[in-house]
Amino acid sequence: MISKLDINCDLGEFYGMYDERRDSKIMPFISSCNIACGFHSGDPVAIHKTIRLALEHEVAIGAHPSYPDLQGFGRRVMNLSTDELEACVLYQVSALKGMTESLGGCLHHVKPHGALYNHAAKNEETAMGIVKAVVQIKEDMLLYAPAHSILSEVAQDAGLRVCNEVFADRRYENDMSLRSRKLEGAVLHQEEEVIGQIAGFLKGEVVTYEGLDLPIKADTVCLHSDTEGAEELAVAIHKFLEKQNVEIVAC
Amino acid sequence: MISKLDINCDLGEFYGMYDERRDSKIMPFISSCNIACGFHSGDPVAIHKTIRLALEHEVAIGAHPSYPDLQGFGRRVMNLSTDELEACVLYQVSALKGMTESLGGCLHHVKPHGALYNHAAKNEETAMGIVKAVVQIKEDMLLYAPAHSILSEVAQDAGLRVCNEVFADRRYENDMSLRSRKLEGAVLHQEEEVIGQIAGFLKGEVVTYEGLDLPIKADTVCLHSDTEGAEELAVAIHKFLEKQNVEIVAC
Amino acid sequence: MISKLDINCDLGEFYGMYDERRDSKIMPFISSCNIACGFHSGDPVAIHKTIRLALEHEVAIGAHPSYPDLQGFGRRVMNLSTDELEACVLYQVSALKGMTESLGGCLHHVKPHGALYNHAAKNEETAMGIVKAVVQIKEDMLLYAPAHSILSEVAQDAGLRVCNEVFADRRYENDMSLRSRKLEGAVLHQEEEVIGQIAGFLKGEVVTYEGLDLPIKADTVCLHSDTEGAEELAVAIHKFLEKQNVEIVAC
Amino acid sequence: MISKLDINCDLGEFYGMYDERRDSKIMPFISSCNIACGFHSGDPVAIHKTIRLALEHEVAIGAHPSYPDLQGFGRRVMNLSTDELEACVLYQVSALKGMTESLGGCLHHVKPHGALYNHAAKNEETAMGIVKAVVQIKEDMLLYAPAHSILSEVAQDAGLRVCNEVFADRRYENDMSLRSRKLEGAVLHQEEEVIGQIAGFLKGEVVTYEGLDLPIKADTVCLHSDTEGAEELAVAIHKFLEKQNVEIVAC
Repeated sequence: MISKLDINCDLGEFYGMYDERRDSKIMPFISSCNIACGFHSGDPVAIHKTIRLALEHEVAIGAHPSYPDLQGFGRRVMNLSTDELEACVLYQVSALKGMTESLGGCLHHVKPHGALYNHAAKNEETAMGIVKAVVQIKEDMLLYAPAHSILSEVAQDAGLRVCNEVFADRRYENDMSLRSRKLEGAVLHQEEEVIGQIAGFLKGEVVTYEGLDLPIKADTVCLHSDTEGAEELAVAIHKFLEKQNVEIVAC
Repeated sequence: MISKLDINCDLGEFYGMYDERRDSKIMPFISSCNIACGFHSGDPVAIHKTIRLALEHEVAIGAHPSYPDLQGFGRRVMNLSTDELEACVLYQVSALKGMTESLGGCLHHVKPHGALYNHAAKNEETAMGIVKAVVQIKEDMLLYAPAHSILSEVAQDAGLRVCNEVFADRRYENDMSLRSRKLEGAVLHQEEEVIGQIAGFLKGEVVTYEGLDLPIKADTVCLHSDTEGAEELAVAIHKFLEKQNVEIVAC
Repeated sequence: MISKLDINCDLGEFYGMYDERRDSKIMPFISSCNIACGFHSGDPVAIHKTIRLALEHEVAIGAHPSYPDLQGFGRRVMNLSTDELEACVLYQVSALKGMTESLGGCLHHVKPHGALYNHAAKNEETAMGIVKAVVQIKEDMLLYAPAHSILSEVAQDAGLRVCNEVFADRRYENDMSLRSRKLEGAVLHQEEEVIGQIAGFLKGEVVTYEGLDLPIKADTVCLHSDTEGAEELAVAIHKFLEKQNVEIVAC
Repeated sequence: MISKLDINCDLGEFYGMYDERRDSKIMPFISSCNIACGFHSGDPVAIHKTIRLALEHEVAIGAHPSYPDLQGFGRRVMNLSTDELEACVLYQVSALKGMTESLGGCLHHVKPHGALYNHAAKNEETAMGIVKAVVQIKEDMLLYAPAHSILSEVAQDAGLRVCNEVFADRRYENDMSLRSRKLEGAVLHQEEEVIGQIAGFLKGEVVTYEGLDLPIKADTVCLHSDTEGAEELAVAIHKFLEKQNVEIVAC
């Protein structure tokens, strides 16, 4: 049974018209956040505000780089060469790191966004592009990656520290990938189901869509702030973890 | 008579379709460069290549932040608040600084681009927005600014080091501003005229459009790489400075 | 006393992550809408969905062109030349018009967005840039403009038809400009105040912030969909207009 | 032996810093042009100037839509859904069409750009997205597509007219695809080779990289304006076609 768990959330995901109310509400419930770097969302003003908010709440700050796809919110795979991807990630993480340091903080981790995250989980070339960039920023930077993924392996081989990310509101397949949102049964809507899955994570296991009971290593749980009822769910998770004496703390 | 002079040039100013031939040709003739940060030009791949090129040629690397105006190449004044401007500059300079450091270099200076440079030269609020950002990146960062400008004063008051920039191919007005390109006589087209103006700079003086002989402090000369005959002019300037025993070296 | 009134609303203002729920909710209460064209917000997918939604609800479709300022949501004045502005407006209105026609609809009007709208209201050169573009799209196109503004005059001189826009939730100054949001008393928060101002519009008059009772010509009322309680307010306005036997219909 | 041939060229491919000299030089040698629509290049000012230039030279005007990838110049495949692609193409072609009509011209054809062109040539879903959009703009619009490609088939099935495009300076493989630029022998550098390939096109045949003599239908030849010696090559092609009594005229 694990004794501590990180809760992370993707924030600062507005461009042009920043609505800080939503991010303000979720901040008290998380221990780390992943801030959009301007390529899928997040203009400089939004980034600046979100970093300040995270520092106030003592939430660990991560960079959340994406494919350069503002129109598609970074949710579409793009066929970039490793060099192109490396330059894109370097640019975004550098911007986030510098802005964080200018406000007296320091960059805690990197978590790729959307299609980049999912594609790197299973595609070695994409994983290499990300990892090559992150290593240059800091040799032993912390990377949030799916447990048991190619991204996780490539990162560790290159010397990065990896924080295994799990999803409390998504069903897993037998190969430990997330069940596609296009298929039925992909998302857990009931609070009890989500809490049940977290209870499994604490014991190091997960029940897949097809019913297998498989081992899983969970260092950080991702909370989706843009789903309805996100706040209520955050409160419920907090209460449950407290009752289990699990400390909520950044990786 | 001054014994050393910096020659700087704006580089990496392509987006999407990078033509490194032009930048490669001008590199041997300059001691410092100002690299576009993505807001008026310069995608991550272009930036990455230009930094590498500068490091190979041992040319000092500067960030060249702009208003967020890709369509207008940063040549149009935008009515940003000081906070918005601060965030924009922080983002761009951080990106350039991080990418430079990841390649083993270090950021030498900051030079605002286009409309931002010209507007900050005479508008205190705009100058403040830039300076507030740069101070946060590094307390005593070097800033390239027009000699005798408001930007220069605000920067020095805030503790930044300032490198006075002069233009060899542009006529000055009596108030030491550059004569507007919209007016006749704004640009020096003849090589002898340009060399003549540089000869004046070495002695600390400049003859204005109206014929006054005024004092000017010149630390760095800006070379425009996008005008026809830029290379030939660069060679001529080099020869002239050598003959005068003036060392070409970054500020 | 006027017998009909248009209610318009700015829609499709999302980029990358489109939330059609908000727009769907407001559609039943309006007779015309102004769809973002991609320069302050509104990617092609968002535009496509919003046009379809408007056609379903038989809401008249307008183009809502902006300065090219995605980061600033089009809320910052940009110093564009008349030619640059003309090209920008032509591009945006053409895109909206073509997409609307491809879905079997037709473009009903043009309403400039944000800083462009406000600046053109009092700056003749900016008004000219917009009007020159719109006239080329259609000689007698309908333009939404503030009553008694320079934009309105320039448009009528050029042969455009003008629909006078008024704001129910904003206080007017004695010169008929909107009281700046930076000043106290700019926004009417109480439902009764808003309804009271509309009652005045129906009679052709408005009480300014300083208490003057001035004549105003109202053809269309702008409803802000992004303020809290927008839906409740829309319902209240509808009820009031019905009771007054005022038909809600596009200009 | 064919008696007429169109020569087309991709133009207006600048963003922010428009250099009309290059486009001006190539205009006298072509009968149709494909104008960038803002997604891989081409801001509104560049588009406006290029349309004017084409009208002056009586060159037929085409829209040149792309994936939304300004950073990658539209040269990278993006995984868009058919709906997303349809909206993207509708937006771009509408903008070009409206701007052309506002200047008194009319849109002659559509030619997809870069990765979109190449991917649609062999991928049915991508071809469908493009064709669905173009049909909505005009039922029997003219589409430039590679001879014998899936895009060509899908377009004709949907009722579009197709103009078969061939490349004079690129080697063909036995399956009639262009030899990849990454492989040796992809590009014809010698003027005689290019003229030789055009001579083949006139007779309806092409010799592939591996030496096969295959039939090919050529309606339009694409001239690349960004390669060195483009102008000289254009002159040579003109002379050759004149000698052969082949009229150079838009499809």
